[in-house]
Amino acid sequence: MKALVTTAVDPLTVELRSVLDPRPRPDEALVEVHATALNRADLLLAVRRPIGSSLGLDVVGTVLRPASDGSGPPAGARVTGLAANDAWAELAAVRTDRLAVIPDGVTDTDAATLPVAGLTALYALRKAGWLLGRRTLVTGASGGVGRVAVQLARAGGSEVTAWVGSPARGQGLAGFGADVVAGYDEPPTTPVDILVDSVGGEVFSTGYRLLRRGGVATVFGNTVRAELRLPADWGHARPGVRIEYLFLLDEVTRRDVPADLALLLTLVAAGKLVAEPGLLTPWTDPRRAIDALYSREVNGKVVLSM
Amino acid sequence: MKALVTTAVDPLTVELRSVLDPRPRPDEALVEVHATALNRADLLLAVRRPIGSSLGLDVVGTVLRPASDGSGPPAGARVTGLAANDAWAELAAVRTDRLAVIPDGVTDTDAATLPVAGLTALYALRKAGWLLGRRTLVTGASGGVGRVAVQLARAGGSEVTAWVGSPARGQGLAGFGADVVAGYDEPPTTPVDILVDSVGGEVFSTGYRLLRRGGVATVFGNTVRAELRLPADWGHARPGVRIEYLFLLDEVTRRDVPADLALLLTLVAAGKLVAEPGLLTPWTDPRRAIDALYSREVNGKVVLSM
Repeated sequence: MKALVTTAVDPLTVELRSVLDPRPRPDEALVEVHATALNRADLLLAVRRPIGSSLGLDVVGTVLRPASDGSGPPAGARVTGLAANDAWAELAAVRTDRLAVIPDGVTDTDAATLPVAGLTALYALRKAGWLLGRRTLVTGASGGVGRVAVQLARAGGSEVTAWVGSPARGQGLAGFGADVVAGYDEPPTTPVDILVDSVGGEVFSTGYRLLRRGGVATVFGNTVRAELRLPADWGHARPGVRIEYLFLLDEVTRRDVPADLALLLTLVAAGKLVAEPGLLTPWTDPRRAIDALYSREVNGKVVLSM
Repeated sequence: MKALVTTAVDPLTVELRSVLDPRPRPDEALVEVHATALNRADLLLAVRRPIGSSLGLDVVGTVLRPASDGSGPPAGARVTGLAANDAWAELAAVRTDRLAVIPDGVTDTDAATLPVAGLTALYALRKAGWLLGRRTLVTGASGGVGRVAVQLARAGGSEVTAWVGSPARGQGLAGFGADVVAGYDEPPTTPVDILVDSVGGEVFSTGYRLLRRGGVATVFGNTVRAELRLPADWGHARPGVRIEYLFLLDEVTRRDVPADLALLLTLVAAGKLVAEPGLLTPWTDPRRAIDALYSREVNGKVVLSM
């Protein structure tokens, strides 16, 4: 089969090459890949693996051969899920406990935006707990995770403040239910109950200071790679406050991923969650996709179609 | 009745004066006070109230008149609980949902050490969750909360690292089940799953760095009043990490305090929790008690007997 493999990692460069077909383990389905997405995690993972490695976490396709242990979707099912760094390929062997069947009405390319970004947004909010009637602040709200987090928080009855890098990046977020959209040069001032952050540094500190008593900050990244600094009254000024760090590839080991993917897919099918790619390119042109990931100029996910 | 009221707040000075008897609300029992304890929270609370105010959170005594709404312990019951800043007095009106009956075999002065310190230690560990087979690091382990936290963590099956200001302050902690006792000049190095901290600053940062993946830091104070600083990889290096702040007077509004006090009292009665005062003085000599609180030279709680 053909697959995109790394030829350089800084910046990431990939090339379409012929590689061996995957050999599924008993709990893995063999999937013919129709679409995949790019994640910032791919950039980090690429650096840790030898040149010539495959990449790719988000996978959408059709089950060619079900898992031999009898688990998971049958042959012919259209599925999406989390692959093991090998989704940028014609075929992928995917654990059935990381797969869900895509309902009618959800396109392949929309489904490809969901596994990493959708599950990250979902678990960040789940860690926060109760949504109804509380206010959620989402930083980096124009990114792949951010756009889903805004919509899920709203769907759960939360009021939402979206914080983005620039006015241009805030486009569409009001339509997703954010009643406050702020740029990084005009920090939000409304107190919040939940902070979902992946920016870190001063953005995290500023967002944290808006937390009310009993507030929860869930963090899943540190884009600016700054240390975490909070004022001396960080706890006492907001009794019961909680800070959680979410690392998706660890979190999924404790979650029911098929059920959680099914929830996201159901919301998309019902029109309650918009999961359109911010940029869609053929996988024969990965350069454009990777450049878009580095430049952060795309609102939402970068998706490759096979 | 007689009560200790503030005559200065920095440093705290109190004087025995005649004041009006408390008038219990329908959900409050009238308690004849036998013992009370001093807490660092009293110092903070004193500053916020006018000179001439009463103080005191920990209360032990006998029910003179049960709550008129029929709730809580009957007349004559020996009780301990959380008072509303008025326990340093001959009589106190105490909410029945903040009271528990003291079992035989637990002395008044031991029981007086429990409400604030025992509940703080208990809730700090409850927030961390699972104890069995995990390692807990308790900073400030020689203090009132610390000594209980060490013992409860051990009783729950946790291995315990106790971190104290000096070797002298570490006395007795090995007997409470801490298999590592470290001083602040010799930081512990064994990785831990749970951090219980009230020191803050560099002690918190150092303890935090010992947290394993999925670790939990529960913080209930910031003695050194320093900002919170953690390295840029604070989250990514320990997936699933969680930081919680506990403020007891807020936490109790969401807890079953009588049941939780009963648990602590049962452990004391069974000899599984040592709750002896570090210093016991008559309430006619509050100066010595308050000085001990400021100087932090006492291992454990400072208790006043009436």
